[in-house]
Amino acid sequence: MPRQTPVIAPSILSADFARLGEDTAKVLAAGADWVHFDVMDNHYVPNLTIGPMVCEALRKYGVTAPIDVHLMVEPVDALAASFAKAGATYITFHPEATRHVDRSLQAIRDAGCKPGLVFNPATPLEVLKYVIDKVDLVLLMSVNPGFGGQSFIPSALAKLREARAIIDASGREIRLEIDGGVKVDNIGEIAAAGADSFVAGSAIFNSKDYAATIAKMREAIASATQG
Amino acid sequence: MPRQTPVIAPSILSADFARLGEDTAKVLAAGADWVHFDVMDNHYVPNLTIGPMVCEALRKYGVTAPIDVHLMVEPVDALAASFAKAGATYITFHPEATRHVDRSLQAIRDAGCKPGLVFNPATPLEVLKYVIDKVDLVLLMSVNPGFGGQSFIPSALAKLREARAIIDASGREIRLEIDGGVKVDNIGEIAAAGADSFVAGSAIFNSKDYAATIAKMREAIASATQG
Amino acid sequence: MPRQTPVIAPSILSADFARLGEDTAKVLAAGADWVHFDVMDNHYVPNLTIGPMVCEALRKYGVTAPIDVHLMVEPVDALAASFAKAGATYITFHPEATRHVDRSLQAIRDAGCKPGLVFNPATPLEVLKYVIDKVDLVLLMSVNPGFGGQSFIPSALAKLREARAIIDASGREIRLEIDGGVKVDNIGEIAAAGADSFVAGSAIFNSKDYAATIAKMREAIASATQG
Amino acid sequence: MPRQTPVIAPSILSADFARLGEDTAKVLAAGADWVHFDVMDNHYVPNLTIGPMVCEALRKYGVTAPIDVHLMVEPVDALAASFAKAGATYITFHPEATRHVDRSLQAIRDAGCKPGLVFNPATPLEVLKYVIDKVDLVLLMSVNPGFGGQSFIPSALAKLREARAIIDASGREIRLEIDGGVKVDNIGEIAAAGADSFVAGSAIFNSKDYAATIAKMREAIASATQG
Amino acid sequence: MPRQTPVIAPSILSADFARLGEDTAKVLAAGADWVHFDVMDNHYVPNLTIGPMVCEALRKYGVTAPIDVHLMVEPVDALAASFAKAGATYITFHPEATRHVDRSLQAIRDAGCKPGLVFNPATPLEVLKYVIDKVDLVLLMSVNPGFGGQSFIPSALAKLREARAIIDASGREIRLEIDGGVKVDNIGEIAAAGADSFVAGSAIFNSKDYAATIAKMREAIASATQG
Amino acid sequence: MPRQTPVIAPSILSADFARLGEDTAKVLAAGADWVHFDVMDNHYVPNLTIGPMVCEALRKYGVTAPIDVHLMVEPVDALAASFAKAGATYITFHPEATRHVDRSLQAIRDAGCKPGLVFNPATPLEVLKYVIDKVDLVLLMSVNPGFGGQSFIPSALAKLREARAIIDASGREIRLEIDGGVKVDNIGEIAAAGADSFVAGSAIFNSKDYAATIAKMREAIASATQG
Repeated sequence: MPRQTPVIAPSILSADFARLGEDTAKVLAAGADWVHFDVMDNHYVPNLTIGPMVCEALRKYGVTAPIDVHLMVEPVDALAASFAKAGATYITFHPEATRHVDRSLQAIRDAGCKPGLVFNPATPLEVLKYVIDKVDLVLLMSVNPGFGGQSFIPSALAKLREARAIIDASGREIRLEIDGGVKVDNIGEIAAAGADSFVAGSAIFNSKDYAATIAKMREAIASATQG
Repeated sequence: MPRQTPVIAPSILSADFARLGEDTAKVLAAGADWVHFDVMDNHYVPNLTIGPMVCEALRKYGVTAPIDVHLMVEPVDALAASFAKAGATYITFHPEATRHVDRSLQAIRDAGCKPGLVFNPATPLEVLKYVIDKVDLVLLMSVNPGFGGQSFIPSALAKLREARAIIDASGREIRLEIDGGVKVDNIGEIAAAGADSFVAGSAIFNSKDYAATIAKMREAIASATQG
Repeated sequence: MPRQTPVIAPSILSADFARLGEDTAKVLAAGADWVHFDVMDNHYVPNLTIGPMVCEALRKYGVTAPIDVHLMVEPVDALAASFAKAGATYITFHPEATRHVDRSLQAIRDAGCKPGLVFNPATPLEVLKYVIDKVDLVLLMSVNPGFGGQSFIPSALAKLREARAIIDASGREIRLEIDGGVKVDNIGEIAAAGADSFVAGSAIFNSKDYAATIAKMREAIASATQG
Repeated sequence: MPRQTPVIAPSILSADFARLGEDTAKVLAAGADWVHFDVMDNHYVPNLTIGPMVCEALRKYGVTAPIDVHLMVEPVDALAASFAKAGATYITFHPEATRHVDRSLQAIRDAGCKPGLVFNPATPLEVLKYVIDKVDLVLLMSVNPGFGGQSFIPSALAKLREARAIIDASGREIRLEIDGGVKVDNIGEIAAAGADSFVAGSAIFNSKDYAATIAKMREAIASATQG
Repeated sequence: MPRQTPVIAPSILSADFARLGEDTAKVLAAGADWVHFDVMDNHYVPNLTIGPMVCEALRKYGVTAPIDVHLMVEPVDALAASFAKAGATYITFHPEATRHVDRSLQAIRDAGCKPGLVFNPATPLEVLKYVIDKVDLVLLMSVNPGFGGQSFIPSALAKLREARAIIDASGREIRLEIDGGVKVDNIGEIAAAGADSFVAGSAIFNSKDYAATIAKMREAIASATQG
Repeated sequence: MPRQTPVIAPSILSADFARLGEDTAKVLAAGADWVHFDVMDNHYVPNLTIGPMVCEALRKYGVTAPIDVHLMVEPVDALAASFAKAGATYITFHPEATRHVDRSLQAIRDAGCKPGLVFNPATPLEVLKYVIDKVDLVLLMSVNPGFGGQSFIPSALAKLREARAIIDASGREIRLEIDGGVKVDNIGEIAAAGADSFVAGSAIFNSKDYAATIAKMREAIASATQG
């Protein structure tokens, strides 16, 4: 199966929360594909960020791009339902944050969204064996979620290759996303290891020219993955 | 002791999260005194709203008015510290959400903020007897926090009178705030019962003219409490 | 206000679970007024008993008497909703088992049932001050729920008098129920202290003649409370 | 090792709780082998069903068939001990519901019962590698426990083959049980995948003729696994 | 009722854990009455100290003085039972750390120890109304337990007077103990407010001469409370 | 890579807590290499032992040998930081006791200690695949931690071989430690299976001659692993 078109998903955690609509529109106009939406509840991770109301506000503002909601919360089901109503496209959660992974995946799909699973740096991928037919997205963390100032964890490259093999073996169209320390400098290597969807926060929002940064990322991906 | 000057504190939960800086500035320009900031963690209450990053963004946007952070979270201490760094002025929490109420109050003050306690509609005020010398704000909920579509609970009026008596007996300058179902129609009655600080969300943000609504609220307070 | 007619509510925890419909019908035929339904979740108390499906089965069997569901569970709201659908009449819970007592009471009433609060032997009654207008039943525990082999705790008599005064002062028709160690021997004294609804388990179900036992209980109540 | 004799285990969750003794006796007389007993605590799963007292009542009623207790609870140990006293034969639990899986298995055996592990649809089987010498039963869920209205999850067939291989490699007599969406139509396919013990609820209790349904199930198993 | 003889109870949290037997014997030889034993579990308070094995070791070493165990733990019952076996004399716990206060008190007494309740600086005393007949000790915290470097909280003096009145009204022999920031300088004032049992840690163990310090404490108590 | 020098690590849980400095010094003088320090919090395991203050007291007493802290606690991070300050050398934790295994390992190293992971008898080793470059110690439990009176679990031998292969494949110097039921009689077999670090509690502290016991252990290890 041919690899899917690369997707750049800026994390709005690095955007300006006082001008979230404007900043989001700007990064999408600069070429970003998705909006990555990081939800922290101060229980699964030691921080609290933004909830369904903020997602809904982006939709009302006019954002039509896919919104890719990463739930760093436990438990999962009630918030997943709220985000489905608030306009989420993808909803991903950590398998250890719910007792009933298969059920939570089904509930997200029944609510009209695309479900996915997220794996912390040290979390094994075994669960995919049993639910690979129910996920549309696999997200690997290359930093520990909820903590600041971290760099890309090198062992994530081997894990990307492992996940890529599982996805390819399934024969299904499943996106393989990476989140944490992704920059222009390493995005090629990451793409070569199997990722096709790339979350980037400060690397984009802290750059002077969003469009130029995104363009460089696309180039690096292309040169690393093309024949 | 003369009653303190009334304060109108619009809850930004009813503002437009895609234009939060602009909407906040607008309501302050319309005469609001404080920014009321509702923090929900999906554990103490069944919803998740906004965290310290959003508070910090408002300060960077240029908001200089007092930010009155209401923590509907458990546990309390780590998030309270984050909000102190993010520019909060008042930080209030629910006494049943922490094992060490006296300690949490002290920690908020040590971090440079004004601490307060919030009481759910059915929560007794007994704890005030032991920490009245450590609070700058007492907040009574006149709806159940975290749930939508509720009206002002009538028994809150008697509870306001009870809290007012405790505050007056203390001889300290402590604000008595009310949150839930406050409107132009009932704000006079609420003020007469002892409140001096008034949270209002949809009553202000859903009105066509913020300034006119706030002005009517001030008039109703004045006519209900003056001579 | 005249005291309400006494109610005898046998606890089906002492009935035969293999013949629950038959045993319940038998005790009602013998003169019992209500079915008392003890729900334990192995978290609020160290035991697990019976859930909504069993309540529903009693209704399908033909039980039309009031079913008085005592939730010894935490959290409260989801199970309360299930019991409302399963045919419960009264639903009572412990105030410390939910963060939002006022809300839980309202939700039970909105679901078509009569809400109430239960107090453990050492739990203060202060919360009643704020929700006395929302309860139809106050249940005092005269043993510690969830543990076996206990006798009536004597300090419950003074607490009954305290609760009776609160109820009478409210001017509302609120039942005052007692649960734990109630027998023919002490039911008169308990009634004199203010109770008007009496849970009894083994005292009824372990007696040879349900009707005779219930009749004796009624006599003891009458002689202790009448002029 | 030759496959063990097939066992049909009707789940009494689908029986009539008002006539539980009678209904259980009836299904056993109709040819069922075991009584499957589903325990939910409203924490591990979002429902609460029946506890040890109900198990004990079945024994007192005269049920002598094996009672196969499936604990959908957390934590595990105290309730497992209560069910051992209440007459359970098998006691199974979910490995993620206890910190000390090896210990819980040993404790069940020390209490005179046969221990087993249950795996949710998405839960990996890795733990079996370390405790295969301590289990008498492996139960695979083919629906998500605690939720209603679900069909047999197709990926359970591959998982049955995986579990069958592990059991056969151990050389021990361990039953492989399946629970969820089992019907006359699919029981043959399930048996072919390796199951030898079959939980069925509504498929039996909602059928007009228990004996006929059980007989059809046995035929389907036999034709799928023989010759 | 005449006030009970003052008791000095050094907290071994300030002793040398490498020479605990010797240091404990030394402070008892210097005139201390009891050994105060602070148990923290890193859940009720943010620290972990010492458990039942250490208590048992003191008894085996030859300590015969009363050991006064203060449980800063949740839940309470299992550890209380372990400490009873390990030789504890008094066992106190915080009422908010157990769902069943009356039951926990009874269980401690049934295990052969003297039960008591501990109140954090902001915790109301209401619960005493219902269990005053079951406690042998009331301990008021004059600092927040589990945190270091705190001074005596002044509002504890009024709370001592409140507790003293409750105890005197009960007519029972109940000790009133104080813990936190007790020193030679303030112990007289504390005794005058109603305390008869005094925990002191660093004030004794960090002094050069244990006996001299304890003697000064006794003098200050005597001069403050005698005619 | 040549196997590392064997290490004998007596568990001070079996030492005399009233004379901990002396007993520890004695066992080190008798030839022990490390001090094994078992920390239980009554939540991860059903017991509470000793915390950071006791570790610090050993350092102040003059213990300079490596202190190998085994955290049987949840959550992990705050206590790990306290033990780093208290003088710990190794700090190990159970992967299921923290949501962020990679992060906790990094935090321990950043605090100046050597991090490791501990595996309960039934816990799979999969997580090592992703963090093998961040651990200095792998500890396998051959009994269930927190429960008394257990013997060495035989399946731990195969698990040692599995862990040994993972460590050898990593090419890093990682110690493989075993804890539970280790005695002179079985230590050779355990060493042959791949362990190089051996925790022993009662086998050493309950023996009359620490030095003789440790010497016999070293001989058994040597004869089992050499040529």
